[in-house]
Amino acid sequence: MSNFGFFHLRLVSPWEPSWKEARSAVHAGAVLERAQVYDSISEAVADCSLVVGTTAVGHRQLQHPVRRLDYGARLVRGHALQTPVALLFGSEKYGLSNEELSWCHWLMRIPAREEHGSMNLGQAVAVCLYELIRGGTSAQPLARAGAASADLDRITEALTELLRISGYMHDQSAELKIRRLVRRMEVSAADAEVWLGILRQIRWKLGHPGV
Amino acid sequence: MSNFGFFHLRLVSPWEPSWKEARSAVHAGAVLERAQVYDSISEAVADCSLVVGTTAVGHRQLQHPVRRLDYGARLVRGHALQTPVALLFGSEKYGLSNEELSWCHWLMRIPAREEHGSMNLGQAVAVCLYELIRGGTSAQPLARAGAASADLDRITEALTELLRISGYMHDQSAELKIRRLVRRMEVSAADAEVWLGILRQIRWKLGHPGV
Repeated sequence: MSNFGFFHLRLVSPWEPSWKEARSAVHAGAVLERAQVYDSISEAVADCSLVVGTTAVGHRQLQHPVRRLDYGARLVRGHALQTPVALLFGSEKYGLSNEELSWCHWLMRIPAREEHGSMNLGQAVAVCLYELIRGGTSAQPLARAGAASADLDRITEALTELLRISGYMHDQSAELKIRRLVRRMEVSAADAEVWLGILRQIRWKLGHPGV
Repeated sequence: MSNFGFFHLRLVSPWEPSWKEARSAVHAGAVLERAQVYDSISEAVADCSLVVGTTAVGHRQLQHPVRRLDYGARLVRGHALQTPVALLFGSEKYGLSNEELSWCHWLMRIPAREEHGSMNLGQAVAVCLYELIRGGTSAQPLARAGAASADLDRITEALTELLRISGYMHDQSAELKIRRLVRRMEVSAADAEVWLGILRQIRWKLGHPGV
């Protein structure tokens, strides 16, 4: 991260012994010193208007739009000019789970050989960050600011509650589907407020059918 | 390497305990199994018509042409369509020494922050190989095949001997200069033979001044 000029590392429930050891290493450096630890992905990305998952495997059944790293990085650069963007990396062994992926707006795929399977985490990070700085500062700013993840969470919650009450949702797994659905909307910051208002209004109406 | 589809690993005098351990690891895989070990860079790159050194530091006084990774990789792809190309990586701690660099035709620089200093070796390799496969197979073949490193070694030797005999060279360090000089010539395979003939002829003449 430091090699390529990225300084904001956020960890979600790291394994304590490894994390302590890494942090106290002689050459830990500024990135590790300033790293922030969170209990959940939701909290870690709350202020980010774009959360991009990373994967080196293409054959898996993915519920998200998957973009090639070079194209995805161009979109990330555009967003990052205006609002915080999070790149989400999974564990080295298992990558990102479906639950973890459900916090992402879309995914970037590193064009690696699928026969090889998983990729070393540090190398995956290096390749993604290199692609982000590769083109210099030629990014185009976005036409509009995206909603922060915390707002998307509120929309997701409101919509989930609504669908549960209305009998649309029957199983727990639908929650991930809704979360992904809301991410795919690519809601702007301004529209997030509108959506929340709409959902709250419908919720109120459902509680007061006679009104 | 395996992630990005590169299978020919050559090591120059690796530290035996580390190398044995790496090779016998459970997930060592085909690249390590088939890796070849050499005693010198000269032998390791003998069949390569292009040897490209790698560096993440820009401020060092370098005697070689240095190309940005994205542009350099394009040239490498062009060469690799016709003849073997070697990417040379130094030790993680010290990078490539001047002696080691003297086997290179030119260098590729990973555009990393210079303030950070050195880069993790595995990450440097991943970034370079990613850049090589990034653009797919759109490389332009070269107009002509370059001379193999073994031929360049013969030219270097012949020229060095000639310069020593003729009194041009006074110190040992000149040897590296000559090696770099010959690499910068970008001799084609056909021209290598011509050059060797010329140098041998001059050498013969120097031994028989009266003829």
